[in-house]
This record gives sequence, structure tokens and C-alpha cells, in this order.
Amino acid sequence: MQQARLSDLEIAEEMADAARAAILPFFRQTNLETDNKLAGGFDPVTVADRAAEEAMRAVLAEHRPQDGIFGEEFGQTTGTSGRVWVLDPIDGTRGFISGTPTWGVLIALSCEAGPILGVIDQPYIGERFVGGTGYAFVKGPMGRTQLGTRDTRALDQAIVFTTFPEVGTEAEGEGFRAVSQHAKLTRYGMDCYAYALLAAGQIDLVVEAGLNAYDIQAPIAVIEAAGGIVTDWQGKPAHEGGRALAAATPELHAAALEILKQY
Amino acid sequence: MQQARLSDLEIAEEMADAARAAILPFFRQTNLETDNKLAGGFDPVTVADRAAEEAMRAVLAEHRPQDGIFGEEFGQTTGTSGRVWVLDPIDGTRGFISGTPTWGVLIALSCEAGPILGVIDQPYIGERFVGGTGYAFVKGPMGRTQLGTRDTRALDQAIVFTTFPEVGTEAEGEGFRAVSQHAKLTRYGMDCYAYALLAAGQIDLVVEAGLNAYDIQAPIAVIEAAGGIVTDWQGKPAHEGGRALAAATPELHAAALEILKQY
Repeated sequence: MQQARLSDLEIAEEMADAARAAILPFFRQTNLETDNKLAGGFDPVTVADRAAEEAMRAVLAEHRPQDGIFGEEFGQTTGTSGRVWVLDPIDGTRGFISGTPTWGVLIALSCEAGPILGVIDQPYIGERFVGGTGYAFVKGPMGRTQLGTRDTRALDQAIVFTTFPEVGTEAEGEGFRAVSQHAKLTRYGMDCYAYALLAAGQIDLVVEAGLNAYDIQAPIAVIEAAGGIVTDWQGKPAHEGGRALAAATPELHAAALEILKQY
Repeated sequence: MQQARLSDLEIAEEMADAARAAILPFFRQTNLETDNKLAGGFDPVTVADRAAEEAMRAVLAEHRPQDGIFGEEFGQTTGTSGRVWVLDPIDGTRGFISGTPTWGVLIALSCEAGPILGVIDQPYIGERFVGGTGYAFVKGPMGRTQLGTRDTRALDQAIVFTTFPEVGTEAEGEGFRAVSQHAKLTRYGMDCYAYALLAAGQIDLVVEAGLNAYDIQAPIAVIEAAGGIVTDWQGKPAHEGGRALAAATPELHAAALEILKQY
């Protein structure tokens, strides 16, 4: 008997479940096999990272063999459908190796114009932020609730997040600080979790630079489904990576963009 | 029939349970009543903060009426036993109002020489780090495990945390950066959760300044029970607040202290 065809959302959740199971045995363990991908930099790859991407790819091999895959660990797999699953098995590896609970599994389903479905999953907390065409929800310790950005419109009322104070290049750092100095509060260190908080109506702006496509596609889908806006620092699509500006409202987006586009 | 007398540990856990129940209904809700304690600064006090301290004080009123209390919200209550419960119902209020899961309930039991029992509780994750005379454990999503600091001895192998990049005064910020630039990795934004990660053997150093006694007493008890060291930047006791240096090993503590004592 043929299995009923799973929806894209069901597949994304099955992938997140598989990644969770692959990663958690390695979280907060000592003596992880880490190696430096970038000579001179600090970009650890854990066993968990690779195992999680393999687990997600296995779900796709079973259910969507015709779709393409672009994963952080194992690169591009060409498909025939025109659709691509964009995967970052552990976004925030520095946070992961530090034991913080704010790294995440990022899963996006994209067509040429950008992501149409996204998942930001935090396996340790057991929290999953999901956004797609017609739905935006979080499931976690307090049950399942709708996601929605909040109504902050003025920069001086905004809570802004970025992961590293230096942000990216020197110029990008200056651009970030030019926004930050007008904001009500600036916080650091949350990796992809900051985008989830924006979609959940808890914070107002996320400004990042130096991103890869797989860092930002799932956040774009989740935030847009929750009513927010994500572009690059020129107001153009951000799904190819680089610089990202995520905002709760159009007014706040415009105010931050006015500053950032000078950098 | 008289109730069996609860141990200090049982009381601390009952207090943490009570604080959790008081706080969680307010976490990630919109329109929290916040007010500025410090004119010009940003130190929100939420309804949850006050409700949690009241809930913890109620536990003490029932079980330890003879002990003193020093709480962030309601100040000093003199006791007759010479013991004082030192409480910060929500450490990391800025993180709390941003929806991050890295604020915590801090509970310490102290005698004149310093804290002898500490709890760092993260209610949203459902995670509790506990340290006292003869025990150091965490209970959370992955069950109950022993706490223990790890064996990092060299500064250039250390992961260092602080909450705000500016740390405290300008001189204190310089001191922090002098340590940070020798470390392997620096991360921000975790509030009291950074101390918990140190006790859990995930990170190696926490450097903070401008602390109150209730910010640091529970972390001291948890970290010391886990085998780590906490002092001020001169190597003296830190339980009165001010500047704190927490380290996984004596060697690492000495290396960081050598730098910080110049500031």
C-alpha cells in the first residue's frame, strides 16, 4: 500500500525531528571532535553538525528525491523540481560549543524567488518556530501559539539584536552601531534565535552581516509569515546571504534602512 | 501532626518552583507593566519580578521565619539565625523582556563568610543548576547530571563570557577586553546563564562588573560546588557584588587575575 504523500510542512518537521535526534547526544558533551574550517578563524564543525545534515538529507531522499538541496555541510545537490531545501544543521556553532541554548536547526524550502517555508528549531529547549504560506506558529515548553511581529514603529522604542558586537567588516560594524545607538536596547549572542524572537513579537530588529544563504532563508520565511520584513541593507532581497535587516514593521524597517544603506 | 522539617536544599527548590509558577505566566506576554528604576537607565521591573520574590518570601515565612532575607525587589528582612537568603527573582530583566531563555531565578543561602547553597533556575527551559556543600547538579531537558567545571588552564584555550560588551565603567571594559583578546572565543548576552554554563563545564571564564550581591551569590555557590573559583578582580571574595571573575581552574583564574588586577 502506498504511503500518503506528506506535505512540505510535515516533511520539514520530520527533518527537524531527525536533526534533533542526531544532535542532542552531542550537545554539552566534552571532547567533541571539532576542526577549524577557516584557517585562522574559529568556525568549529562538530560531529553533530554533519550527522544532522545527513539525517535531514535522508528524509528528503525518501520523500522528495526530485528536490534540490543546499546544505551548509555537504553543499549542493541538484534536483529536477525547481525547489531547493536550504539547510543549516547547526546555526550558531560557537554558541553550541559553549553550551548555550540559542543555536538552532535551520530548514527552508525555496523556489527561485526565495524561501516559502521555514523552520527554526531549538532541540535542547524543545522549541520549534515555523512559518510558511498561511501559517506562523511556535511549539515549545508553553504549548503551541501563533507567531506575530509586534507593532513597534519608532527606532527609539526598538530592541535590536545582533550576534557579535563587531557584526562583520569594520564598515558593517559602524552601520550596525549607527542603528544601535538610536535603539532602546541592544543585545548580543543569540544567533538564529534572535530571528525567532522577532517573529514571536519579543524584539523589533535584527541586523547581521556576512551571512550565508542557509543562515537567513529559514528566518526570512518565519519572519515574513509572522508579518515582519527581511531585506539586505539596500532594501533588496536577502535570501542569497550577505547583510540582513529584519524588522517588525515597515516603519521600523524604513528607519533602520535609512541608516544602514549608507554603509 | 507536625510536618517533617525540610532541608535547606528542599526549601531552595520549593522557592524556585514558586518563583517559576509566578513568572512564567508573564514571560513572552506583551504589555508588561515595566517601569524604570534608574532614571536615564534601562532597568525594567516586571510584575513577574515582584510576584516571584513575594512567592519565595512566602516559602521562607512558612519554613524559615528565623532566617534573614535580602531580595532585589523588597530589600532586607532581618533574621535571628545569622543566615540570609539572597534572592534575585529575575536576573537578566533585559533578557527577559526580550524573550531570551537565558535569564534566571537566583537563590542563595549565605552565612557571614559567603554563600553555602545556590540555585540558578531557568523556568522556561525547565532547567535548574544547584550547588551546595557536597552536591552540584543540573536537572533539565536531558535529565539530571553532575556539574563540574572543565580542565582548561591556558587563557588562549578559554571561552569567556560577559553580558554586555561595555561590561561596566570604561576602565572595567578595558580590563575585560584585555582578557578577551587573549581568549579563544568571547560571547555575550547570557546574564546568569553564563555562570551555569561554567559550572556545567561548557565555558571557562565569566568576567562581569557592576554586580549586586544578589547577582553573584547563587553563581558563587554553584560554581564553587562544581569545582570552579569566583573572586573579585583583586582575588578577594566577590559575594558583596561589584566585579567578578569566575574561572574553571586555578591556573586560568590566576592568568585572568594577572590582567584584571591592573584595572
